Amino acid sequence: MKLIAPLAATIAFAASALLADPLPSWNDTDAKSRIIDFVESVTDPASDDYVTPANRIATFDNDGTLWAEQPIYFQLIFAIDVIADMAREDPSILTSDPLKAAAAKDYKAVISGGKEAVIEVLTASHAGMSVTDFQARVAEWVSTATHPQTGLRYDQMTYQPMVELLRYLRDEDFKTYIVSGGGIHFMRVFAEQAYGIPSEQVIGTYTETQYTVENGVPMIIKAPAIGFVDDKDGKPVNIERIIGKRPILAAGNSDGDFAMLEWSTAGDGPRLGLIVHHTDADREYAYDRDSHIGKLVDGLDKGPEMGWLIIDMAQDWHRIYTGVR
Amino acid sequence: MKLIAPLAATIAFAASALLADPLPSWNDTDAKSRIIDFVESVTDPASDDYVTPANRIATFDNDGTLWAEQPIYFQLIFAIDVIADMAREDPSILTSDPLKAAAAKDYKAVISGGKEAVIEVLTASHAGMSVTDFQARVAEWVSTATHPQTGLRYDQMTYQPMVELLRYLRDEDFKTYIVSGGGIHFMRVFAEQAYGIPSEQVIGTYTETQYTVENGVPMIIKAPAIGFVDDKDGKPVNIERIIGKRPILAAGNSDGDFAMLEWSTAGDGPRLGLIVHHTDADREYAYDRDSHIGKLVDGLDKGPEMGWLIIDMAQDWHRIYTGVR
Repeated sequence: MKLIAPLAATIAFAASALLADPLPSWNDTDAKSRIIDFVESVTDPASDDYVTPANRIATFDNDGTLWAEQPIYFQLIFAIDVIADMAREDPSILTSDPLKAAAAKDYKAVISGGKEAVIEVLTASHAGMSVTDFQARVAEWVSTATHPQTGLRYDQMTYQPMVELLRYLRDEDFKTYIVSGGGIHFMRVFAEQAYGIPSEQVIGTYTETQYTVENGVPMIIKAPAIGFVDDKDGKPVNIERIIGKRPILAAGNSDGDFAMLEWSTAGDGPRLGLIVHHTDADREYAYDRDSHIGKLVDGLDKGPEMGWLIIDMAQDWHRIYTGVR
Repeated sequence: MKLIAPLAATIAFAASALLADPLPSWNDTDAKSRIIDFVESVTDPASDDYVTPANRIATFDNDGTLWAEQPIYFQLIFAIDVIADMAREDPSILTSDPLKAAAAKDYKAVISGGKEAVIEVLTASHAGMSVTDFQARVAEWVSTATHPQTGLRYDQMTYQPMVELLRYLRDEDFKTYIVSGGGIHFMRVFAEQAYGIPSEQVIGTYTETQYTVENGVPMIIKAPAIGFVDDKDGKPVNIERIIGKRPILAAGNSDGDFAMLEWSTAGDGPRLGLIVHHTDADREYAYDRDSHIGKLVDGLDKGPEMGWLIIDMAQDWHRIYTGVR
């Protein structure tokens, strides 16, 4: 028995050490303690800040918050890759400058065409097929395509500290949602495996869809028209419409997330707003006020006084990507 | 020990008897056994028909499927009651015949004005206020208003057999959703208490909403415009958009549910489509092909050959309402 007691103590210590650090890829800075303090306060039934599990709703932006978004949104890289593939089969599809730029994988030229050029590229690669066929195309791409700068697969460029945060929250009976400007049909292909988030908790931008029955087979077809843009004010609108509860934790990285954080943290009781600030040019990217993607001005200027936690990637994160780099 | 054994046996028997009938308000007819056989086959890991919990999605229409819908949709009765109240405060609001008919609680006159009259009455009672204020109004009504024919509160006119079915499915790790032509903001007020369905699993028709910040307070305002009609083809479209998975069980009562059942039951593997057929003029209402509400033609004509189960309320249900009548 004397021999066993220290062993049991060791095991107990190991278990408690594991429990004590739900966020191993976060450095021991204020950011980490504020997150843990928040979660402990809302999950402790003895706390004044206790929140029932049914109301533990957490919403996360995707691009720039859960995975990288440079040099351009990954969904746009997917669209460009698809058009390049389509053009190899049939060059006659390249009927416009944006499509030609896409086929040449010239990101800058696509972007320089503005919103209309981007929508043309997205539509040509996303519409006119069933959701099932579209998602098979995305699955093929996610499992093979690699990022031009890191050489990682895109689903390896998810942020390890954020994946840990999502898991920690779910372990504490939170429901974790994605609320992103990205497309629902695109994100649902990898969200379960990459983040542990099932399709019914993926909220985002969507194209119009039509229900049709062809030769007795019902299908849902993606139409060449945007149904809803899940960005800026669209985020709280969509959260209210689909979840019907106000999140107690919301995380983003750009001013497109401002309204979501504002709406979430203005509710009664304990709330936590998180902004991922891209400060790490060495390990990831450094950008904020002047960026063409993920522009962050209001979040930096007003976030702190609203009590939001600004996460400094360079300081607060021990590791960046889930994939090895 | 001899005394305790029979006691234990009795307890075990009692527990097993409870387990043996998850649907006590259903008569012992084919309908009940088909439902139980389906649930047992998809939840038995040894069965070829086994479905993982993540894919056990069940969707239910509300009006006429989970609660009654005669003489007119209860949400329209609510709207009419609201306008009558508003008119008592300020009769000058009654600027049209439909609004005057509503203030007089003349259901027939409102309905006879057609879709436009109904939308006018709904808009006047539902729009131009925050979702929070609207839902407080609904909560007040649900807790006090009573049905003109049964004298029951509306939330007592939910169907006991269907509430048992919802609970049985959740006990077997299904996620149960409402997918209804009714309004999400209206239904969410009572869905949790009446059906055990949380707001994030209530899908339905919605008005456009706007996010605004007034005097520093963010709010979501209901606009006087319909954003999406969750009926007919809109049901599979909304299910795909919000859940992103195809239900393995779908239940409705009218041709407005046909597409939802068609979409759900056309998927691979085991599927169950249910139609609640209103056959009980004594205890509830009897209507189908010629009804102005809940019209059911395609479901009766094509449902059986598609393998759908037509529930005969008079034959299959031992009890109708959750409320005492």
